[in-house]
Amino acid sequence: MPESHAQRRAALRAQLRDRDLDAMLVTDLLNIRYLTGFTGSNAALLVHAADEPNTEQQTVFCTDGRYLTQSEQQVPDLERIIERPSALALAARIGRKAAAHARTGFESHKVTVDGLTGLAAAATGVELVRAPALVEQLRLVKDDEEVEALRMACAAADRALADLLEHGGLRPGRTELEVARELETRMLDHGAAGPSFETIVATGANSAVPHHRPTDAVLRAGDFVKLDFGALVDGYHSDMTRTFVLGEPADWQRETYELVAAAQAAGRSALRVGADVRKVDAAAREVIDRAGHGDNFLHGLGHGVGLEIHEAPTLGKSGEGTLSAGMAVTVEPGVYLAGRGGVRIEDTLVVRAGGPELLTLTTKDLVVV
Amino acid sequence: MPESHAQRRAALRAQLRDRDLDAMLVTDLLNIRYLTGFTGSNAALLVHAADEPNTEQQTVFCTDGRYLTQSEQQVPDLERIIERPSALALAARIGRKAAAHARTGFESHKVTVDGLTGLAAAATGVELVRAPALVEQLRLVKDDEEVEALRMACAAADRALADLLEHGGLRPGRTELEVARELETRMLDHGAAGPSFETIVATGANSAVPHHRPTDAVLRAGDFVKLDFGALVDGYHSDMTRTFVLGEPADWQRETYELVAAAQAAGRSALRVGADVRKVDAAAREVIDRAGHGDNFLHGLGHGVGLEIHEAPTLGKSGEGTLSAGMAVTVEPGVYLAGRGGVRIEDTLVVRAGGPELLTLTTKDLVVV
Repeated sequence: MPESHAQRRAALRAQLRDRDLDAMLVTDLLNIRYLTGFTGSNAALLVHAADEPNTEQQTVFCTDGRYLTQSEQQVPDLERIIERPSALALAARIGRKAAAHARTGFESHKVTVDGLTGLAAAATGVELVRAPALVEQLRLVKDDEEVEALRMACAAADRALADLLEHGGLRPGRTELEVARELETRMLDHGAAGPSFETIVATGANSAVPHHRPTDAVLRAGDFVKLDFGALVDGYHSDMTRTFVLGEPADWQRETYELVAAAQAAGRSALRVGADVRKVDAAAREVIDRAGHGDNFLHGLGHGVGLEIHEAPTLGKSGEGTLSAGMAVTVEPGVYLAGRGGVRIEDTLVVRAGGPELLTLTTKDLVVV
Repeated sequence: MPESHAQRRAALRAQLRDRDLDAMLVTDLLNIRYLTGFTGSNAALLVHAADEPNTEQQTVFCTDGRYLTQSEQQVPDLERIIERPSALALAARIGRKAAAHARTGFESHKVTVDGLTGLAAAATGVELVRAPALVEQLRLVKDDEEVEALRMACAAADRALADLLEHGGLRPGRTELEVARELETRMLDHGAAGPSFETIVATGANSAVPHHRPTDAVLRAGDFVKLDFGALVDGYHSDMTRTFVLGEPADWQRETYELVAAAQAAGRSALRVGADVRKVDAAAREVIDRAGHGDNFLHGLGHGVGLEIHEAPTLGKSGEGTLSAGMAVTVEPGVYLAGRGGVRIEDTLVVRAGGPELLTLTTKDLVVV
């Protein structure tokens, strides 16, 4: 593991040099996890562009006494300081070695207004430079280790759903909450540390609510049942949605389903290296628009997924940029008919030069249970 | 529910008037939940000190289209705007009605450096005033509804542990992960929406690591087994730790346990209205210091608990302030003997005029399993 973390820090150092920064103070815990492997709840990391061990230009990790042993194991390859509060401790260090840290970047998209006041007071004689989302830019493209974690997270969700169906877990008479709970337990059975977000189970008219929270509502014959869920493995999140019909589908249900499935296929096909993220969204949206249901598809097509359940890039009208090989994203169009029911179909995929790699392997055919 | 939320907003408005603020832009989601009951993942709230409905001085809630239905149900009593991004939408509104919002507070301890730049650009003609932790100050003292949620969260954890023990779940041969998982599932059985943090199960020498994460390590006869876990109910977190011995305790185990139990009792006794939080910590620490184990108690005595698992007040050397009736806190001293094992005993309690109300009801006698 330390190898991949060292490679990620090397990539950040290249960014620092490009920006004429001597160093970067990383305070976001997910970014620190990405760069070091540390999973505790308090840490800060000072990455020096020169990275010369045992000099003023060394990279330094800081956490508090609770994580003495854990940080020894997880971050054996970096100079460690045990002090609380960690970010202020590193800011003070920068201030003491101001010449080697004349221009130090900080995460202006994460550091609070009050937090910056504190850092600036501690890092005397140093210019603290806004450097938003530098690490997030690196995180956009997943390395092999990250894709492997995503693959395991997707597999845990796929298998949990297969088990649920095989054991008759989706049947009239059960409540949304019971189904949600069984799905979550079955993900644990398949190696998940937990659900990657609050599981959505929405039956009947509730399926028309994009982000319905499961309730005591009872599944009934003829209902659409929408399941949106994911697993957390090694800190990485999977995200998938499938929609079922309990019993023989009515015509409107079959039509809605086929429409969303066609839009989802169009969205997946558009996942090409170099594609504008808004065009990927448009490719799926057009299918739904043409069928006259544009007003019933209220959200974006998808989002990046990784150490966060929602991260860049955004596949939607408000998104920016183009796709690169190694980006992991969801594709999840939906059509929601208020008071009747809705359908969403969602996969997690990795953008590849030869076409997207599907990590969610459950069928997207209309399954009648 | 809306009643308690309206009362909480009224308390905030009194704070605004004290600070000569016309309004407050609340962007922290937990604070918004506290003030409105909204549980979605995107929202902003503009609380006006005057709070005159249907005027420029009204309180306004904003979320995005995903939460159209949910916000109707959860926030029926406030003017709603559906727009994304929500904080910027309210900032623009402030800018359009600048006279009524001349001095508007913002959460400078939560708003990022880049975030403030965006808000200031939208709220033209308005002075955005740092107003850190105003809502958190209100959240320090729990109202009856909150204490009831904490009570249910503590009960779910107590009952899960009782079930685990009754069904022989704590026995040599099982792994830490198996025990953690069973505890978490049993909390769900008792009404928890989930664990309130990552469950700690630490056996043998691992119990000497204050924040050990459960592994495949196998429980063995003679081990200390430390369980630190909690349940989440209605957004409120419980937190408890118990340490067991598998089989007949050795003398050092009994002595360590009795020492920690005595320190924990001293800490609970010190939980009095008006007590300085550092003195509460000191009351427990003194017991451990006197036994010569001061260096083996590495963390603070406890912390506030509520909508967050760790919130103010801090019972520790770095804490500030005094206790008030209605504060909910943990008391959790520990003694950790590296390479051998450790003991922590932790309850969640509410500070009351007549002495603390214990919400964690599991026995603190040394239980031999």
